[in-house]
Amino acid sequence: MAAIDTVLAKIDANLDSALGRLFDFVKIPSISTDPAYAEDCARAAQWLAAELQGLGFEASVRETTGRPMVVAQGKGPRPDVPHVLFYGHYDVQPPDPLDLWETPPFEPRVADASTGKQIVGRGTADDKGQLMTFVEACRAFKETGGLPCNVTFFIEGEEETGSPSLPGFLAANKAELEADMALVCDTGMWDRSTPAITTMLRGLVLEEVVIHGADRDLHSGMFGGPAINPIHVLARIIADLHDENGAIALPGFYDGVAELPEAVAEQWQGLRAHEAEFLKGVGLSVPAGEKDRGVLEMIWSRPTCDVNGIIGGYTGKGSKTVLPAQASAKFSFRLVGQQDPVKVAESFRAFVQKRLPADCRAEFISHGASAALQLPFSSEALTRASRALQAEWGKEPVLAGCGGSIPVIGSFKHDLGMDSLMIGFGLDDDRMHSPNEKYDLASFHKGARSWARVLNALAL
Amino acid sequence: MAAIDTVLAKIDANLDSALGRLFDFVKIPSISTDPAYAEDCARAAQWLAAELQGLGFEASVRETTGRPMVVAQGKGPRPDVPHVLFYGHYDVQPPDPLDLWETPPFEPRVADASTGKQIVGRGTADDKGQLMTFVEACRAFKETGGLPCNVTFFIEGEEETGSPSLPGFLAANKAELEADMALVCDTGMWDRSTPAITTMLRGLVLEEVVIHGADRDLHSGMFGGPAINPIHVLARIIADLHDENGAIALPGFYDGVAELPEAVAEQWQGLRAHEAEFLKGVGLSVPAGEKDRGVLEMIWSRPTCDVNGIIGGYTGKGSKTVLPAQASAKFSFRLVGQQDPVKVAESFRAFVQKRLPADCRAEFISHGASAALQLPFSSEALTRASRALQAEWGKEPVLAGCGGSIPVIGSFKHDLGMDSLMIGFGLDDDRMHSPNEKYDLASFHKGARSWARVLNALAL
Repeated sequence: MAAIDTVLAKIDANLDSALGRLFDFVKIPSISTDPAYAEDCARAAQWLAAELQGLGFEASVRETTGRPMVVAQGKGPRPDVPHVLFYGHYDVQPPDPLDLWETPPFEPRVADASTGKQIVGRGTADDKGQLMTFVEACRAFKETGGLPCNVTFFIEGEEETGSPSLPGFLAANKAELEADMALVCDTGMWDRSTPAITTMLRGLVLEEVVIHGADRDLHSGMFGGPAINPIHVLARIIADLHDENGAIALPGFYDGVAELPEAVAEQWQGLRAHEAEFLKGVGLSVPAGEKDRGVLEMIWSRPTCDVNGIIGGYTGKGSKTVLPAQASAKFSFRLVGQQDPVKVAESFRAFVQKRLPADCRAEFISHGASAALQLPFSSEALTRASRALQAEWGKEPVLAGCGGSIPVIGSFKHDLGMDSLMIGFGLDDDRMHSPNEKYDLASFHKGARSWARVLNALAL
Repeated sequence: MAAIDTVLAKIDANLDSALGRLFDFVKIPSISTDPAYAEDCARAAQWLAAELQGLGFEASVRETTGRPMVVAQGKGPRPDVPHVLFYGHYDVQPPDPLDLWETPPFEPRVADASTGKQIVGRGTADDKGQLMTFVEACRAFKETGGLPCNVTFFIEGEEETGSPSLPGFLAANKAELEADMALVCDTGMWDRSTPAITTMLRGLVLEEVVIHGADRDLHSGMFGGPAINPIHVLARIIADLHDENGAIALPGFYDGVAELPEAVAEQWQGLRAHEAEFLKGVGLSVPAGEKDRGVLEMIWSRPTCDVNGIIGGYTGKGSKTVLPAQASAKFSFRLVGQQDPVKVAESFRAFVQKRLPADCRAEFISHGASAALQLPFSSEALTRASRALQAEWGKEPVLAGCGGSIPVIGSFKHDLGMDSLMIGFGLDDDRMHSPNEKYDLASFHKGARSWARVLNALAL
């Protein structure tokens, strides 16, 4: 096994070719939520498996009823070295609205910004760029004497759609996927110069509702008034979901939501200067949401409810005096602590049913549900990883929460009895899920170097 | 001038060829609200002008900044006979949702129904079929000795979009368009066997609102909570527009709304048996809208507010955890009595502004505004027309209100000092503005016969 400096030097030397590999990966429009891109998801899985085979991993693409998984095994110097399972996802969010992209979402490029070079394209940050930092770290080890740990890759293609196939796949392939711990690269830094290890993850409940009224679209002049308008009914439901203090009005919604440990609350208080910048970065200035809660608190440790999409009636140019037969909306609930995803979904559906006037009918579609997860604030692996990150960045990492949801972390804990070490190099201004998504070149380069140091530290 | 029976016989003999002419007219997709169909609107105007020229009218297509008008002049037997101005519109509503049409909307056909033969296609009822009943009546007179009155045709192509060019055109062509009275065929019968003359028309205010929040779409996990969600803001505004009694909550909205004259209220009470059927016909059973108001009253003599369309965020298949940068909705207000369209629009915009939280901005787009109109409940022309309709249908016509809005009636009254006689042959089940719009063959045939009788009666 080579000294860590040799491995880091190799990562530096590989940077240009590593960028070319990431570009090839990003060019595949592996959008998991839209069936029209199922074939592209399969291509992305095959591309990744081939990459790992090229590095000497035993890699294979594994079919599911949804998008395929990629599993790969790589051996360390001895059987008794730690065994890590690396998780990431090759699927990406839809790029729309397309007209807001400065260049096509699946034609990656490197752009110069005041903060340094950026890799622009859908998936560069979430999660292809992050995933490739670990692949490139492994490559550097392979090219300088071999992996310091036993490494299993487990890459899915349904993360953006609630990972429907994942629990079943874990159950069916337990022996193959079990390891000492999971390493996950799908989270962010605290800021450009401060790394972070994420220890809290919010859960997610995705519900779609279609409100049906009359059996056809009607002329709003001939029927408006006496005929129920499903858009009005849906709007009332959405309005009722939050009270005047920004709290969510679903009965029992806050069951299982605890206040923060004081130590953590204090650390986050110290970070509040960041809050104004955080909103300013997206053209906002005043925190919305729950009154008397900090921005970080709301994103990291409080549950939320958002309507992610709504449509009904005539939405073309000009006007049409139609009274629509139906209206629909997509809802997402972010969960924390011990909130039960099943109970939240049930409470939501009852909440909607209770508000349906005569002649209206609600149709429900679930797009997935996962519980929140709290990882230990201290462990041997966490301590070693912290030191490794401090060596690379010169700063102690923040123990952060994460607003987004990574369902697999819960499955690793509950189904494989494995804790996860969540280390990622994304930044708040990466525009994940938005037009012109980017990943800093520094995140990509120092991310790979960070993983090399972490793998090395875990093996010692 | 021939005896009326000769004219009626000619209409009967012409029915098949008349149907062919209506088909040619319906085949032109003259959708006025969508600029993509501007050329088709022009074609429809040219087609109609050519038809009228063929009947010996002095007809011309007249350009506007929007869709063109058609004006045509036809002489009666003597200068001193009554001069009528006939108004109709060649523009139609968009056909969407297309997938709900049993046959293509612009490929008209005659279908058999339990209630008799129906002409199916977009615009067959609103307003191409109705308009052609008057054209065919004029044809029969021309082919049997000539028109009994001086007849001016005035056909527009912007009725479905609030007639933006119409006031200016009337002002610029006053001398050419002035007449003793206007005849309008854009309303309905009371039922299949009972004709109606419409004396009340609701006004219309069309407003579109776009709520802007953050400067880009955001990840609802990374920003949900502290970042404002424009869909929530829009939903709250829509919910606030109606109170718990179904009344509209805009300050001053009901200024100028009077209760019905007792005689009329009593006549309508006598028609309430109809209300259940009216809702049942579209799959509904319980009247929505203002508490303690009858269905006919709500449609004919009460103002309403409906959201005709709403869109925001991700509306494709599956889910996307996006927090959208904007959300928009199209609103229509139906006005009655002396309600001021300008004040209603102003009150609405203030209502929206008042509900905008920090960091939100509202963009307003007006799609037109017109006041309601109350015509005299009795006049010489009304009496003659009633007798003529009774002769054709064997029943006295109902003096009805109309839920829809025909802006030009107000302009005729205010700009040309002319009352209008609104006689139409549409039925509640015509599916105007909806998929599978139809016009009963009986409406088309007996409608033409009715106009022949009315023209004859006015001339005596």
